[in-house]
Amino acid sequence: MANITKKVSWSSRGDEPAPAGEGTPLLNGAGGAARSYSRQFSGSGIFQIGRLSTVDLEEDPAPEEESAISRPKEIPHNEKLLSLKYESLDYDNSENQLFLEEERRMSYMGFRCLEISRWVVCALIGILTGLIACFIDIVVENLAGLKYKVIKENIEKFTEAGGLSISLILWAFLNSVIVMMGAIIVAFFEPIAAGSGIPQIKCYLNGVKIPRVVRLKTLVVKVCGVICSVAGGLAVGKEGPMIHSGAVVAAGVSQGRSTSLKKDFKIFEYFRRDTEKRDFVSAGAAAGVSAAFGAPVGGVLFSLEEGASFWNQMLTWRIFFASMISTFTLNFFLSIYHNKTGELSNPGLINFGRFDSDSVEYNLYEIPLFICMGALGGLLGALFNVLNYWLTIFRIRYIHRPCLQVMEAMLVAAVTATVSFAMIYFSDDCQPLGEDQAENYPLQLFCADGEYNSMATAFFNTPERSVRSLFHNPPGSYNPPTLGVFTLTYFFLACWTYGLTVSAGVFIPSLLIGAAWGRLFGIMLAHITPYGSIWADPGKYALIGAAAQLGGIVRMTLSLTVILVEATGNVTYGFPIMLVLMTAKIVGDYFVEGLYDIHIKLQSVPFLHWEAPATSHALTAREVMSSPVTCFNRVEKVGTIVDVLSNTSTNHNGFPVVTRVMDDDEPGKICGLILRSQLIVLLKHKVFVERTRSRLNQRKLQLKDFRDAYPRFPPIQSIHVSQDERECMMDLTEFMNPTPYTVTQETSLPRVFKLFRALGLRHLVVVDSENRVVGLVTRKDLARYHLGKHGLEELQLAQT
Amino acid sequence: MANITKKVSWSSRGDEPAPAGEGTPLLNGAGGAARSYSRQFSGSGIFQIGRLSTVDLEEDPAPEEESAISRPKEIPHNEKLLSLKYESLDYDNSENQLFLEEERRMSYMGFRCLEISRWVVCALIGILTGLIACFIDIVVENLAGLKYKVIKENIEKFTEAGGLSISLILWAFLNSVIVMMGAIIVAFFEPIAAGSGIPQIKCYLNGVKIPRVVRLKTLVVKVCGVICSVAGGLAVGKEGPMIHSGAVVAAGVSQGRSTSLKKDFKIFEYFRRDTEKRDFVSAGAAAGVSAAFGAPVGGVLFSLEEGASFWNQMLTWRIFFASMISTFTLNFFLSIYHNKTGELSNPGLINFGRFDSDSVEYNLYEIPLFICMGALGGLLGALFNVLNYWLTIFRIRYIHRPCLQVMEAMLVAAVTATVSFAMIYFSDDCQPLGEDQAENYPLQLFCADGEYNSMATAFFNTPERSVRSLFHNPPGSYNPPTLGVFTLTYFFLACWTYGLTVSAGVFIPSLLIGAAWGRLFGIMLAHITPYGSIWADPGKYALIGAAAQLGGIVRMTLSLTVILVEATGNVTYGFPIMLVLMTAKIVGDYFVEGLYDIHIKLQSVPFLHWEAPATSHALTAREVMSSPVTCFNRVEKVGTIVDVLSNTSTNHNGFPVVTRVMDDDEPGKICGLILRSQLIVLLKHKVFVERTRSRLNQRKLQLKDFRDAYPRFPPIQSIHVSQDERECMMDLTEFMNPTPYTVTQETSLPRVFKLFRALGLRHLVVVDSENRVVGLVTRKDLARYHLGKHGLEELQLAQT
Repeated sequence: MANITKKVSWSSRGDEPAPAGEGTPLLNGAGGAARSYSRQFSGSGIFQIGRLSTVDLEEDPAPEEESAISRPKEIPHNEKLLSLKYESLDYDNSENQLFLEEERRMSYMGFRCLEISRWVVCALIGILTGLIACFIDIVVENLAGLKYKVIKENIEKFTEAGGLSISLILWAFLNSVIVMMGAIIVAFFEPIAAGSGIPQIKCYLNGVKIPRVVRLKTLVVKVCGVICSVAGGLAVGKEGPMIHSGAVVAAGVSQGRSTSLKKDFKIFEYFRRDTEKRDFVSAGAAAGVSAAFGAPVGGVLFSLEEGASFWNQMLTWRIFFASMISTFTLNFFLSIYHNKTGELSNPGLINFGRFDSDSVEYNLYEIPLFICMGALGGLLGALFNVLNYWLTIFRIRYIHRPCLQVMEAMLVAAVTATVSFAMIYFSDDCQPLGEDQAENYPLQLFCADGEYNSMATAFFNTPERSVRSLFHNPPGSYNPPTLGVFTLTYFFLACWTYGLTVSAGVFIPSLLIGAAWGRLFGIMLAHITPYGSIWADPGKYALIGAAAQLGGIVRMTLSLTVILVEATGNVTYGFPIMLVLMTAKIVGDYFVEGLYDIHIKLQSVPFLHWEAPATSHALTAREVMSSPVTCFNRVEKVGTIVDVLSNTSTNHNGFPVVTRVMDDDEPGKICGLILRSQLIVLLKHKVFVERTRSRLNQRKLQLKDFRDAYPRFPPIQSIHVSQDERECMMDLTEFMNPTPYTVTQETSLPRVFKLFRALGLRHLVVVDSENRVVGLVTRKDLARYHLGKHGLEELQLAQT
Repeated sequence: MANITKKVSWSSRGDEPAPAGEGTPLLNGAGGAARSYSRQFSGSGIFQIGRLSTVDLEEDPAPEEESAISRPKEIPHNEKLLSLKYESLDYDNSENQLFLEEERRMSYMGFRCLEISRWVVCALIGILTGLIACFIDIVVENLAGLKYKVIKENIEKFTEAGGLSISLILWAFLNSVIVMMGAIIVAFFEPIAAGSGIPQIKCYLNGVKIPRVVRLKTLVVKVCGVICSVAGGLAVGKEGPMIHSGAVVAAGVSQGRSTSLKKDFKIFEYFRRDTEKRDFVSAGAAAGVSAAFGAPVGGVLFSLEEGASFWNQMLTWRIFFASMISTFTLNFFLSIYHNKTGELSNPGLINFGRFDSDSVEYNLYEIPLFICMGALGGLLGALFNVLNYWLTIFRIRYIHRPCLQVMEAMLVAAVTATVSFAMIYFSDDCQPLGEDQAENYPLQLFCADGEYNSMATAFFNTPERSVRSLFHNPPGSYNPPTLGVFTLTYFFLACWTYGLTVSAGVFIPSLLIGAAWGRLFGIMLAHITPYGSIWADPGKYALIGAAAQLGGIVRMTLSLTVILVEATGNVTYGFPIMLVLMTAKIVGDYFVEGLYDIHIKLQSVPFLHWEAPATSHALTAREVMSSPVTCFNRVEKVGTIVDVLSNTSTNHNGFPVVTRVMDDDEPGKICGLILRSQLIVLLKHKVFVERTRSRLNQRKLQLKDFRDAYPRFPPIQSIHVSQDERECMMDLTEFMNPTPYTVTQETSLPRVFKLFRALGLRHLVVVDSENRVVGLVTRKDLARYHLGKHGLEELQLAQT
């Protein structure tokens, strides 16, 4: 059982066929090698770590004995660690001779065509994302409709005859079965498709390579999974996963091929590198948001706020374009589906309905109330996050087998159904069934004829519809106790649900919780104030509460404001929503981070924040860098290269190329930087000096060869190099990046950080005053430092 | 008359008391030195320019003979030039020892306090900007109201009695007088306050130092100027200048002192450097947009789209906060002014009014129409820009004396009044005076009793009100001929007006033109289609037309979409507006650049775009850089430093510090970079090695001394250095930036550009493989290359 943690960790499955024993206990304390790290680190000064971090940088298949020694039931978790498992993406072009030659050959028209094809790709991304959203929406509507119809008929049958427990069992059974299907495909086929995918996309845009995150298989599992979990009645939304889906679509379309399907369309070959791909993934994420909420501008802002660091005007417009197309496509096809072709009135998956102009006004003296609601949202959000944090740690420790995960998901589904049923059963909140009632499945239950159970509106419905009825149902549709009990139960249900091994988002449950207590708040206000009329619309407070709760959980401000404004279709509430989100963020941040950040941290991802920690000016590149560095000569022996690449204990990905070193002790002068992936392509094509001499007619290696291998470069083990070939020489001049960015040893950490982050680097070479290589700074070296409670803290690196 | 071009060029007044003859003819061709440059350049290859550009980098008081030789009436303009007059701002911190020591001394709490004070500053910026907007609005309303009342009474008096020409003269006279006042203060006191100020703020955020652009005096002149020009009836808006005003407020508040008022509050001293100041100026510009349009999110996007290059989440939130506060302040005070305290219904200076939910729907088959309108807007916008471009060149050549400029402004004011009068006079479009008519000054003129002249609604009104009535007046309020004639005349009037020496924006006139032809378009559609009802609302088409026209002129997309959505208070039109803006931009860009970019180019500003030209990979740092470079030793003789700084023919601002050079021919190894401003402070405080030795009790120079001198460092001429002192030595080690970013000679231009732009550098040192300084890349070296019609073109550098 080497796959103990396989399903828990995002990147549990290696990208490449790795040697046996790849799965390693998530963190140290499990004995063996991991423990030895922690012992080494425990008494370590900065320098020691500096030295050590070279040894265990980058992914490293765990020592063989590991899995033999310990097969723990419980995996202790220590969040003061940084995983060495995640590789970085290279958002800085390797401008080697091949690349420059190609660029120089290209005419102005060539660049124009490239630019146009970028727009075409963005249009395709938008269309496909819109179609996926459309598909999810229609399938969920039908499945959920079918389910509720069956249960409703059953309940109605047994209401008078007695034996409602049968209905309960039917409901719980239906939910569990549907959720089980969703959980099984996620847990067994593609664990990375679990959750909303937003943390993963955040990491991807930040420059961390999360294995398998943008694969076609992930998309398929994600889409099926989200359909099952929403139709299965879990407290989840289908909006978050749309963002991930959009990103996968973008990564696929922009490459003009599918590695999974082994189909290469031979188009968009220029875009086969990390830099270009990232830009399209931003566009895809934006298109996803846009389709989910009908918020194209919000999508762009989401992409920028959560992802991009370098704001480029042209890129932003393309992202915007993709977002527009996505909403439009969704709108268009949904209008056909609803037989209202041409009426573009379904802007997104979630439609908050239109707020009437009369009821949307607010007054100055309501602003303190909004701020209070924001603070409340921040508090509740922090509580939610803390609970979910503990739960996630529990899950990491104990629920790491796929079958356990599926069982947990089924349990949650059954409990959700049971709780809902109990709520509806014990509720005595009967409301008259109006003519224009938007309830799709009004449950009469024990109410008088012509009335329906109001608790059922909230529970016996898809969450999207519940949100809408909380916003728009006329005053008096809900009793305060109904709302209070609903808030309480749904809060814990949603908290339990997030982090299950199903594809699901947290947006809608958050909105629902917030809308419930917001409406409650509004009703209470109307009770205690003498004014009467101005407080008459609890829907307004429901909206503010929804914003506060969501803001308190995810802690976005700018993009969320725009998303909510676009989703409600009314900017009058723009200012209150902003205020509320800002307050919720400030209050919430006082206690704990946002939900996504918590999950990123729990995975020990080397995530780079916007700036270096404030008090890190005392550190310089010398202390931060890894050293000594493995370097290559300009013309290097093939044997040496193969040996270095095969060395599993180092497993570096970038190698400075230096001028020939006479004395081994003295570091060489830097003259370039070459990547593992490039070396592997060179070895595969056997680009040896001797060969080019002997066989002049051999085809020269082109950029195309590198692009064809991107992004799944074969592992070094798969490349056979004979003993003769090991004696050959390889000339790296043409393939290395001759102008890597360098810094001197005295450069302060914030300065290094700024350079690294702004340019999206993967390797930054540290040189001395003679331009000799003395160290290498990678993502992990920078992400290690963070501001803790006691000032600057240093995370330990570990093979989690 | 050395100040021939003084008023034409943005930066005509030097920031420092410069030697006589500072004003130089705007461009070459005027004879003398400038001509000699162009001759040298004409046959130059890249290398030659590389060498030459060292000599004339940075601001250079023009040769003395210049003003003696030529005093041309006509100043030929050549836009293929890049001015050497503009200095750069330093958006990269100089992390010298003093700075690092201070940062290291600071505790975590210190950084928290700093962060809080940043928020406080943003709040202050928001409040002050909101108050200024409020002031402008109230004064303009009252002044314009008074004016229209007087004229209306006069017209009514003469309508029946005959002698309307007296009314015309009165109108023209009133307009001219008010405009004259505005033009005089701008032309004579602060020419930089002319126009909307948006191009200047764009340049500032880009990193170009436009002299006097963020001074208090500029703000005062701007505010008074805009009041005069709007009240004077010109075809201008008061929204553009708000952006400039917000930026000035931000630059002032954040520094905690006013150099003009000689008042230092001793607060916010930490923010006295370019980097911090820029961040606040972004916030100020956003607050300005927010106050102008009631669009806080739009403001943030404007700031980002037009200015910032590095997107930082915390910064964005602060900007957002400033925007929110600004709208809120404006709202609050306007609600008090309008006696509706607490009703926050005046979100911005321009209020488009509320679009009813019923009339805002659009249908799929309207989308092609929207796209057509977008294309039309793009065409008309391009026409506007081309006409304005020619006009501006004409102005640069012939209208460069302040008195001429004032006269032109008066002429335009009189012509505007005359044209308006004629239009109203000859119009026979009478409309019944409804009960709920929003017309403030309905002119009956020759209409029957109970009717009013509909042309007067458009002309006899502030432009803001005209826009609103075009959007919201019921169908049938305007005859098609009225709208057609109005569009035509207003188009030319607005085009003539933009670029006058008055403070005025182009947003509102553009919206007005667009709204007019959009409404016309809507009416025509209703005529030719059989459907009837769906086309019934010409207000919708007026809005789309307004968006198209504005987009065609200024070419913003994302921020403008949000601004318009926020200003109309309705997101239903979000998608059509996006489509229209995108189309307008694509169509317009085919012909000519956006209006702001044209004006930036006409000023020969070394503006850095988002990316290096596509086909510039063939160039490397070696070809781009200036060389040889003036370097200093770590310990340098004071005399040498003074001589270099006083050398007016070079006037460099950044000097690499190198290790002692034995052989003069061989360049030294880089060990730091020091700025002119730092050297000047050192010289002023006489920080000489000998002195520190002899007088040990002397106060050590602190960062505070540099901050006190910021941003107006004294010129070298004002610092007296005795002959004895010239023999002293200065140790630069502590003050230089010891870790400047460097690149090697082989680095390609796009790579250099990316580094330079992403980090906001001012000087980038080019080194060889031995780390010896071989060149220096500055803003002008990069801005020189641009994509022309025949591929990559190189601009010439000139002392314009």
